[in-house]
Amino acid sequence: MRPVVTLLTDFGLDDTFVGQMKGVMLGLCPSLQLVDLTHSVPPQSVVTGAVHLRWAWCWFPEGTIHIAVVDPGVGSDRRAIAFRFRGHIFIGPDNGLLALLLGEQEPDQVVELSTNGGGISNTFHGRDVFAVAAGRIAAGDSLLDLGHEVPATSLIRLEIPEPVVGRNSIEGEILLIDHYGNAMTNIRSSMTPDPIIRWNVQCGEFQVERISSTYADVQTGQPLALVSSMNTLEIAVRDGSAAARYDLTCGMQVRLTLPNAETMSKEATT
Amino acid sequence: MRPVVTLLTDFGLDDTFVGQMKGVMLGLCPSLQLVDLTHSVPPQSVVTGAVHLRWAWCWFPEGTIHIAVVDPGVGSDRRAIAFRFRGHIFIGPDNGLLALLLGEQEPDQVVELSTNGGGISNTFHGRDVFAVAAGRIAAGDSLLDLGHEVPATSLIRLEIPEPVVGRNSIEGEILLIDHYGNAMTNIRSSMTPDPIIRWNVQCGEFQVERISSTYADVQTGQPLALVSSMNTLEIAVRDGSAAARYDLTCGMQVRLTLPNAETMSKEATT
Amino acid sequence: MRPVVTLLTDFGLDDTFVGQMKGVMLGLCPSLQLVDLTHSVPPQSVVTGAVHLRWAWCWFPEGTIHIAVVDPGVGSDRRAIAFRFRGHIFIGPDNGLLALLLGEQEPDQVVELSTNGGGISNTFHGRDVFAVAAGRIAAGDSLLDLGHEVPATSLIRLEIPEPVVGRNSIEGEILLIDHYGNAMTNIRSSMTPDPIIRWNVQCGEFQVERISSTYADVQTGQPLALVSSMNTLEIAVRDGSAAARYDLTCGMQVRLTLPNAETMSKEATT
Repeated sequence: MRPVVTLLTDFGLDDTFVGQMKGVMLGLCPSLQLVDLTHSVPPQSVVTGAVHLRWAWCWFPEGTIHIAVVDPGVGSDRRAIAFRFRGHIFIGPDNGLLALLLGEQEPDQVVELSTNGGGISNTFHGRDVFAVAAGRIAAGDSLLDLGHEVPATSLIRLEIPEPVVGRNSIEGEILLIDHYGNAMTNIRSSMTPDPIIRWNVQCGEFQVERISSTYADVQTGQPLALVSSMNTLEIAVRDGSAAARYDLTCGMQVRLTLPNAETMSKEATT
Repeated sequence: MRPVVTLLTDFGLDDTFVGQMKGVMLGLCPSLQLVDLTHSVPPQSVVTGAVHLRWAWCWFPEGTIHIAVVDPGVGSDRRAIAFRFRGHIFIGPDNGLLALLLGEQEPDQVVELSTNGGGISNTFHGRDVFAVAAGRIAAGDSLLDLGHEVPATSLIRLEIPEPVVGRNSIEGEILLIDHYGNAMTNIRSSMTPDPIIRWNVQCGEFQVERISSTYADVQTGQPLALVSSMNTLEIAVRDGSAAARYDLTCGMQVRLTLPNAETMSKEATT
Repeated sequence: MRPVVTLLTDFGLDDTFVGQMKGVMLGLCPSLQLVDLTHSVPPQSVVTGAVHLRWAWCWFPEGTIHIAVVDPGVGSDRRAIAFRFRGHIFIGPDNGLLALLLGEQEPDQVVELSTNGGGISNTFHGRDVFAVAAGRIAAGDSLLDLGHEVPATSLIRLEIPEPVVGRNSIEGEILLIDHYGNAMTNIRSSMTPDPIIRWNVQCGEFQVERISSTYADVQTGQPLALVSSMNTLEIAVRDGSAAARYDLTCGMQVRLTLPNAETMSKEATT
């Protein structure tokens, strides 16, 4: 049995902070399978970390333990929490970083972790609280061995805007720019009525008249919109950076509209 | 038994793409030993990825599974492949990324992987095709369980220029600039006749009159040429960056010549 | 049994050097648990690497093997060494990189590793000497199987300045700037007499009149000094970068002083 632990932080890779967390966990459970999700969340950017975690956790097997630490409130009275959801365990600060992945659902069990005690620093709960909790869970402890249960409704939730879905338009925004300069939006493929391909997509100077099914549908250097591997609308340039070309940034509005002709023919048939 | 899987991509480490691949593999084979080769291949740079893989795979034990994903053609009709070579398994797109390491040889068995089917995105075959294939191989499947056999001769090959070896000169080029600013060339140590130390090396503004055996043969800040740990000619500056000092870039011509005196004495004795 | 091996280098993550080391180790000991401490030590910066290692190793369980490679003297007559200290094994070049963590103590056993022999390059002892040594130790070899014993007093030691502790002042310096722009100093919390909170801290343009217990003690954007998770004095800006704001760099003097009033009241009561 090799419990999987994933780590997502804003610690970067230049220091040994992530390594220290892993050392603590391996001291508690030597058989761990450790996987880095990313440590490049912009410092203190809870929303970016939450979006990354929301899109990544579900690709891991049931029983996986996920630690996430983007924690500007470390040492304050913000709570340290752990919860179980769909057979996975999530551990981190109670600042919305973890709770975003719940969507409109609630976790099965939530505990508040103790942040007092010998050897707990005021500045590095990633190592002294969250890694200890993950190591103990991996070694067989239950959530209730780690702290006292608190109501699921008490979790801090981030307020991330949901797209506005109208009859002939959808207005969303850019959540993340990825390594290639592709812009990931909050518009999920399930929001766009069939046929998905007939929508105009516009974001700042970016504009296309249909949704493609893959990068190779357009020529090198051409813009396109497509459904990403996270099932969200993605704005891209084939073999290039859409973010650089069109000055795209997180939070920019993205607008899908049905062109007039399409609208009319659709209206006629409904 | 802990099968080793290496990963080489152009995904970077800022997103969770690599983590998602690892999650999929661990769901199929929990005992994996996962090793990152690099995820910093410049976006879409198949040649750079191929050179990195060619120099790295052979340091792993027999039975290792290598996934490489630099895949500008994802979603097009480019094939997804896996092959066995010298007891290792290689998995990735059929665009030359893997085949470069074969040199003039052929793999033992090649299969084309299916890229249709439930849950396969059009944009992320790294996770949906290649990671699944690696996880299944690690869990005990054979290559033929993953797809249908295709001729080894059908593999796409990159055309990387070979050095031109003359009687008194060798002309090659820079393949990679490493983290230190050292330039790695395509001139292999086996190409230079004995005695290796008597050659002039010239590349742009860089020039030295002999080949050193190690960095410490010259003073700090001095240029040198030496045989790298990949057994190729390397251009360096001790404790400095040759690339920055001499404006070296990939593709620049590197010229080795026998100085006149040496040439004559050698000609006299042959 | 899964021996833990940590790696700390200045190799960066753009090349496959770290991966090659891991491949060699896994060939010798397939059950390894591999953990990266950091590979972002500035090229050839032995002191920075030594400080990172000194603060990180102790978080790993007894029996851990630590490889550190910041090695400007590779290929020269600098020795390759391995030693045991407090139940951990340390492997690397004998240039002070490892010895700093010993403080004023001596290791239990030191051996010099052979750097001659088939397949050992002159430029990459990380792979050809140190990874081989770590893999063999992990697989069960003893230190004496790897080389001949040498006196502990023969280890090269770095000369890192110690703080000057006076009656009413402490003068230290910045050792590291971390990912957030926090400055880590060489002033340990044990050096400051009780009560720690009454000291003035000054470093260049940075100045605060007390030592805080955590980041949240001040408002966002405000400067503070606190005891870091490494139990050293740290200079920070809440939710910001102290290094950027105050132009802090490694080596800058940091001065703690007791303000006059405090000094007098303390003197009166002692």
